[in-house]
Amino acid sequence: MVRPAGQRRAPRPVVPVNENAAPDAPSGSRVPRFSRRALLGAAAGAGVAGIAAGVTATEIAGTRTPQPPSQVVAFRGDRQAGIITAAQDRLHFAAFDVITTDRSQLVALLQQWTTAAERMTRGEETFENGAVGLSDYRPPTDTGEALGLAASSLTLTIGFGPGLFGPDAENPTRPDRFGIAAHRPAALAPLPVFPLDELEPARSGGDICIQACADDPQVAVHAIRNLARMGFGVVSVRWSQLGFGRTSSTSVDQQTPRNMFGFKDGTANLKAEEPEQLDTWVWVQPADNPAAAQWMTGGSYLVARRIRMHIERWDRASLFEQERVIGRSKGEGAPLGQSGEFDAPNFDLTNGRSPVIARDAHVRLAHADNLDGVQILRRGYNFTDGSDGFGHLDAGLFFIAFCRNPADQFVPMQQALAAKDALGEYITHNGSALFACPPGVAPGHWWGQTLFES
Amino acid sequence: MVRPAGQRRAPRPVVPVNENAAPDAPSGSRVPRFSRRALLGAAAGAGVAGIAAGVTATEIAGTRTPQPPSQVVAFRGDRQAGIITAAQDRLHFAAFDVITTDRSQLVALLQQWTTAAERMTRGEETFENGAVGLSDYRPPTDTGEALGLAASSLTLTIGFGPGLFGPDAENPTRPDRFGIAAHRPAALAPLPVFPLDELEPARSGGDICIQACADDPQVAVHAIRNLARMGFGVVSVRWSQLGFGRTSSTSVDQQTPRNMFGFKDGTANLKAEEPEQLDTWVWVQPADNPAAAQWMTGGSYLVARRIRMHIERWDRASLFEQERVIGRSKGEGAPLGQSGEFDAPNFDLTNGRSPVIARDAHVRLAHADNLDGVQILRRGYNFTDGSDGFGHLDAGLFFIAFCRNPADQFVPMQQALAAKDALGEYITHNGSALFACPPGVAPGHWWGQTLFES
Repeated sequence: MVRPAGQRRAPRPVVPVNENAAPDAPSGSRVPRFSRRALLGAAAGAGVAGIAAGVTATEIAGTRTPQPPSQVVAFRGDRQAGIITAAQDRLHFAAFDVITTDRSQLVALLQQWTTAAERMTRGEETFENGAVGLSDYRPPTDTGEALGLAASSLTLTIGFGPGLFGPDAENPTRPDRFGIAAHRPAALAPLPVFPLDELEPARSGGDICIQACADDPQVAVHAIRNLARMGFGVVSVRWSQLGFGRTSSTSVDQQTPRNMFGFKDGTANLKAEEPEQLDTWVWVQPADNPAAAQWMTGGSYLVARRIRMHIERWDRASLFEQERVIGRSKGEGAPLGQSGEFDAPNFDLTNGRSPVIARDAHVRLAHADNLDGVQILRRGYNFTDGSDGFGHLDAGLFFIAFCRNPADQFVPMQQALAAKDALGEYITHNGSALFACPPGVAPGHWWGQTLFES
Repeated sequence: MVRPAGQRRAPRPVVPVNENAAPDAPSGSRVPRFSRRALLGAAAGAGVAGIAAGVTATEIAGTRTPQPPSQVVAFRGDRQAGIITAAQDRLHFAAFDVITTDRSQLVALLQQWTTAAERMTRGEETFENGAVGLSDYRPPTDTGEALGLAASSLTLTIGFGPGLFGPDAENPTRPDRFGIAAHRPAALAPLPVFPLDELEPARSGGDICIQACADDPQVAVHAIRNLARMGFGVVSVRWSQLGFGRTSSTSVDQQTPRNMFGFKDGTANLKAEEPEQLDTWVWVQPADNPAAAQWMTGGSYLVARRIRMHIERWDRASLFEQERVIGRSKGEGAPLGQSGEFDAPNFDLTNGRSPVIARDAHVRLAHADNLDGVQILRRGYNFTDGSDGFGHLDAGLFFIAFCRNPADQFVPMQQALAAKDALGEYITHNGSALFACPPGVAPGHWWGQTLFES
């Protein structure tokens, strides 16, 4: 679906057509004066499959680049979208501080967010006629920069940080502002400080996160901006991060992308097509929590790490060194000693006396075989945030991983990597956060309802 | 064209196929061990039009999203690409300080840059087999993160800043490091400080700029990163800026995009289809300069302004106020009092006693009718650079304009806007730079050759 495009339309007179009215459109909403709507079909490469009243193909064909097939990813379901959804190409991730102590305000925001988020994932404005259709004398309820853009596979995924739940081991005196301390799942414990961490508070933590992924970055930015805006007085943006290119595949149908070191990333990732593996490593199971934390059943924990890559240092390393550090070939992405990207690494192979895959190679230390079988679902993004003031690009990997229990999965993995990984010479972790992402939003439910009504 | 994809390929053995060898491939280059190549055709939506030896359709179909038609924009010609080229969707812009005083080093870099830039705009690595094909014991000559990505309409546009030319009115003692002070065009004078400017040195100025525009942001980032890398010891990144969405159309075939205020931007822009207008307002003409600065004939001046938009303040303004400030309707983008986006504004219309388009409306102040007919070619991008530490998104417009003489065009326009524009309440200019972009690169020539050999 496409938001009202609005170009070359007839003058302002009221057009009471409302053929796409959402079932949850606020009752009593004003008659729209801006009701152009169009549909982009999902047929590969075609673009325009269905066109609503009043829009001609010529008008839509004004777009310069043929749109990739518009996809709407379902917002509601047993699981939140944006976790095992085939990774979209662009990211805008925001972490919020909750600045109210009024539980009802927070709940009201979560309810408003849910309605707006669902609408935006369908390619609609945050509210019916939000950008220009309601009143001249009020601020528009949608900021408008996504008018005319397709749904673009937008997913919006919410998570709750430790600070929302009051006291924990790291902050024993933190107040239980919202009366939910009893519902804190044990797995939402602060991450330890890892060797070589150089975490910046302004890039770390947060009470709530929203991950926006889309094929069009303007759609992702629009979503975060409008949700942040709706939260005025209740939440405040603590930090946010744009990612311009995915570094993981989460489906067997996806080609493995490359990170800023030029290597394929996420080859051995968990995939959406492996439901048993996902139940083992991604989705929180009923047995994981006592009754008070059953609201997380079917959810997952999101670990975010901003990994600055020292690309200039890396770019001066020989290909031999780069492949030794990673433990894979740069071109094909095959484990050293093998020929295909998806060949299993053989850590016992030797080249004379030394192992073909070095003892401190990233692929060895991060591999499930060397972590008692532990796996995680990676869903990270390349970023470049301008320059660092020293003549270098501030580039790297915004690492996102989903796991059933970070203490059993991400923490031991990162402990092994931070201590020994040859890659440590070329990267610095400077941001870190952990969030509990509840299960999917059931029909009629709102974000976090299982928590706040549990 | 597509860079070697390299997934699921046969093992490492040398494959001496080199069906796409560029005419300028370095002689004596090693036999590639990584020679997969494929072609993406330009047929709308189809994607794979031609496939080179050794690549099957199935392998390419591993890509999740069907690629938009791959376009190669010609690097050489009378004019530099990236000025009147139909504006691509994504930007990476870098400003460099030249850190050497050795003219021959700078010239050598410009020559190397030219070869690499031309290759990258064709969708190739910076050097033949640069990522993995040359030597295990040297750093790869291409960083590799664009392997497998299409050319994506990449354009690379170079400009030279005032600092390269030695002394000027603002810096009378600056040394003439490269012996080109006599070739400074008068139009490359420092911009004045405008009312309300809050310029940050770390976002302003620079001796050389490179503008990378592409349909895929990873292709643009890869290009800037590799050019920056090649410049080690000669240039240093002073600042850089990513843009996620174009805010201008530069062709009548393009739909007008929206900026972060949710308004269509650039409706009245100059267009590639108006050659006479372009000669008047964009391209430097022979009569503009004395003999010593004829190297700029056919070039243009690039003005870059980082405009932080106070989107939270804006988002709390009524639709009436927003439309009053801009002077256009938000939905359609029509001048107030008119019905169509491309209708001419009527500045004499009144609504009772007050003008329909306010006296301080942006569209009035910026309109050619109110600037003695002056026009510029706008080619800016929306940006969001994380958060500002005060709970707000650091978002705005990275304004880029091309003009024949900034002193006659951009400066009076910005003087009029900075002093009176109602939009001034909602924006802050915090970065500024001016560059002289030479004419196009003739066959066999290199970037800046008209300057350094003039």
